[in-house]
Amino acid sequence: MNDLTQTPEMLIATMGARARKASALLAGISDADKANALRLAAQALRDQTAQIAAANARDMENAAANGLSPAMLDRLRLDAGRIAATADGVEAVAGLDNPLGSVIGESVRPNGMVLQRVRVPLGVIGIIYESRPNVTADAAALCLRAGNAVILRGGSEARESNRAIHAAMIEGIAAAGLPADAVQLVPTTDRAAVGALLKAAGLVDLIVPRGGKSLVARVQEEARVPVLAHLDGINHSYVDGAADPKMAQAIIFNAKMRRTGVCGATETLLIDRAYPEPAALIGALIGAKCEVRGDEDVRALDAQVKPASDEDWDTEYLEAVISARIVDGVEEAIAHIAAHGSHHTDAIITEDGAVAERFLNAVDSAIVMWNASTQFADGGEFGLGAEIGISTGRLHARGPVALEGLTTYKWLVRGTGQIRP
Amino acid sequence: MNDLTQTPEMLIATMGARARKASALLAGISDADKANALRLAAQALRDQTAQIAAANARDMENAAANGLSPAMLDRLRLDAGRIAATADGVEAVAGLDNPLGSVIGESVRPNGMVLQRVRVPLGVIGIIYESRPNVTADAAALCLRAGNAVILRGGSEARESNRAIHAAMIEGIAAAGLPADAVQLVPTTDRAAVGALLKAAGLVDLIVPRGGKSLVARVQEEARVPVLAHLDGINHSYVDGAADPKMAQAIIFNAKMRRTGVCGATETLLIDRAYPEPAALIGALIGAKCEVRGDEDVRALDAQVKPASDEDWDTEYLEAVISARIVDGVEEAIAHIAAHGSHHTDAIITEDGAVAERFLNAVDSAIVMWNASTQFADGGEFGLGAEIGISTGRLHARGPVALEGLTTYKWLVRGTGQIRP
Repeated sequence: MNDLTQTPEMLIATMGARARKASALLAGISDADKANALRLAAQALRDQTAQIAAANARDMENAAANGLSPAMLDRLRLDAGRIAATADGVEAVAGLDNPLGSVIGESVRPNGMVLQRVRVPLGVIGIIYESRPNVTADAAALCLRAGNAVILRGGSEARESNRAIHAAMIEGIAAAGLPADAVQLVPTTDRAAVGALLKAAGLVDLIVPRGGKSLVARVQEEARVPVLAHLDGINHSYVDGAADPKMAQAIIFNAKMRRTGVCGATETLLIDRAYPEPAALIGALIGAKCEVRGDEDVRALDAQVKPASDEDWDTEYLEAVISARIVDGVEEAIAHIAAHGSHHTDAIITEDGAVAERFLNAVDSAIVMWNASTQFADGGEFGLGAEIGISTGRLHARGPVALEGLTTYKWLVRGTGQIRP
Repeated sequence: MNDLTQTPEMLIATMGARARKASALLAGISDADKANALRLAAQALRDQTAQIAAANARDMENAAANGLSPAMLDRLRLDAGRIAATADGVEAVAGLDNPLGSVIGESVRPNGMVLQRVRVPLGVIGIIYESRPNVTADAAALCLRAGNAVILRGGSEARESNRAIHAAMIEGIAAAGLPADAVQLVPTTDRAAVGALLKAAGLVDLIVPRGGKSLVARVQEEARVPVLAHLDGINHSYVDGAADPKMAQAIIFNAKMRRTGVCGATETLLIDRAYPEPAALIGALIGAKCEVRGDEDVRALDAQVKPASDEDWDTEYLEAVISARIVDGVEEAIAHIAAHGSHHTDAIITEDGAVAERFLNAVDSAIVMWNASTQFADGGEFGLGAEIGISTGRLHARGPVALEGLTTYKWLVRGTGQIRP
């Protein structure tokens, strides 16, 4: 382990150098061996369920003493079921297709040189996260499967849990012959270590923050390393005049109410003035105890609708609250989304294919949907197997980011003695 | 034009808002119209050759009075031939394949939802450059062809030239019915405007610096917006024991001496101890007045070899100087490159396919070549048509970056009423 008397910068520099070395070693390790390492790590997690649960109990005790909220305590809590689910998740990553080595472009130049672009690992990835200790295993598994070394920095409240999970992970990894330094856990919960990690340009190739808005905002503000991050999910569902009311009813209810706390939840409902059954949409939400905050037109539909303030159109509630507005057709819906959206996930419900294509083309969001619930915005639902996060940025990877987003490419040029004239 | 009495932050905020609006308008403009706009812009550049040359003459006069170096004066200079070449370059970009709308991935989920990833514009791109006024046209053409709005900030020494070129560009663009705000030139040469542009997160999606190392370093240090940049090109050519001496001789001479000032030039020569004719490689370089700085073994080959210092292995000369070292086989070459390279372009010369593949796999650079000159590291030579630059970063785009690197993608989901269970 590292010497805790050193400065955070020295600590991160040492860990970064070790990670870089491990990343170079990983390049020489077969995909089968990497997958095997994850299977052994999953087994180690299962074998050490008692130790992990005991470590978590210590964290829970401290957290309760420190007055953490019930929601935070729930995120922190690990029981046998959650530990088993974490192990299953690591094993599932072992079963995904190898993201490395695939040829993403090929051409032969007139002078005979053969060019290929081939997927390779990104290098060293830093993960900064909060109270969920399962991220220690999930994120490490994804990074490793894509051939990367990872430096994990979890929340101080999950310190003991993270250590126990990390110990199990590296036991499995080392047993498979992989370098243990491929998965390192920052051994201090000193917040200055986060700052050092965020500034470790040249040591860390990508930072992925996993947590609430204040964490993500801090990371984006301080980082001198590229960041793959998810900010707001102010998602819209637009019910067009040509929507099938039964479908619209089902989708809107699901998009808002299935789980209100996920980033893919719909936060604003836009209803075309030509839609025949707007009151039923609103009534169903109110009937399920969803607070509806509407403009004048929506308030006229139901006496229980509260007035929406200007702020409401720019708010990600993440609870059973929705803002709602009547618009004049798809163009006004597009304009509203352009003005108030967060470029995460937006949907249209309509039977008119031309209107749908106009919406799909004009809405500039990571995910644009036609006749489906925004709650599908998820790497697993998209068939990616697992996700490291959903990116609301525009570079490198957009929307759900899984193994492919943890890779880059290099150009291979095979010649026969070509020189440039 | 903008009011020059406002602060740089206000100026950039205004320009950014206009660019965002133009970028949204561009989404509704056909590819044919964008290509036509570039052809009209090229014609306007040709028609206004006299005005552009006159503006350039004023810049040259000021620059000479300010004591600019002959190299900088040459970069600044525009004559009829260079203006025609610039117009040809803009026209060539009009002839490239449309980078937008292509489907880069498609799948059908078990519930019937159809997913596509489709290429879309990045949004608003900032270009910060130095004395070459042709960048005003080149960079604008590439950004616009990929559907982006662009904010250009050229060097103060090229102020008049840039204005004249920009005026011609927007004349052509507007004549084709495109929004003139799609191509904006920062109207002040106040350096604070660069700082404001680098911090315009949310207004600008990507910054591309085009210039010397000090500019790129400043941009990388100050930017709060993603940067696509090119740092050093400390490129290696490794001559393996199994190289064909005639081929090795030709490639090494070309890789170093064809043009010594380009970023793809070889800066370090690594020679396998088993290679039969090392003295001829060194002798040919020295015969062409290339200074060779070698280790003890290389110095033993030729009395004119100067001793290499530790710094030499980490130096990008960009002139007729090369460092040279004898290594024990491909593994030592790979280790040297890992320790001293800049992840730009590295090459192996060998007839042994297995050794070549080992090198191609193990060297972690944007471009890795077998039996070809590193001077081919160029978007045009790679068949990309034109390049905005060569990226030594690992995210988003690596190596030569052309139209595709100026795009992102969005996920389109087409359903038939799916809700998430």
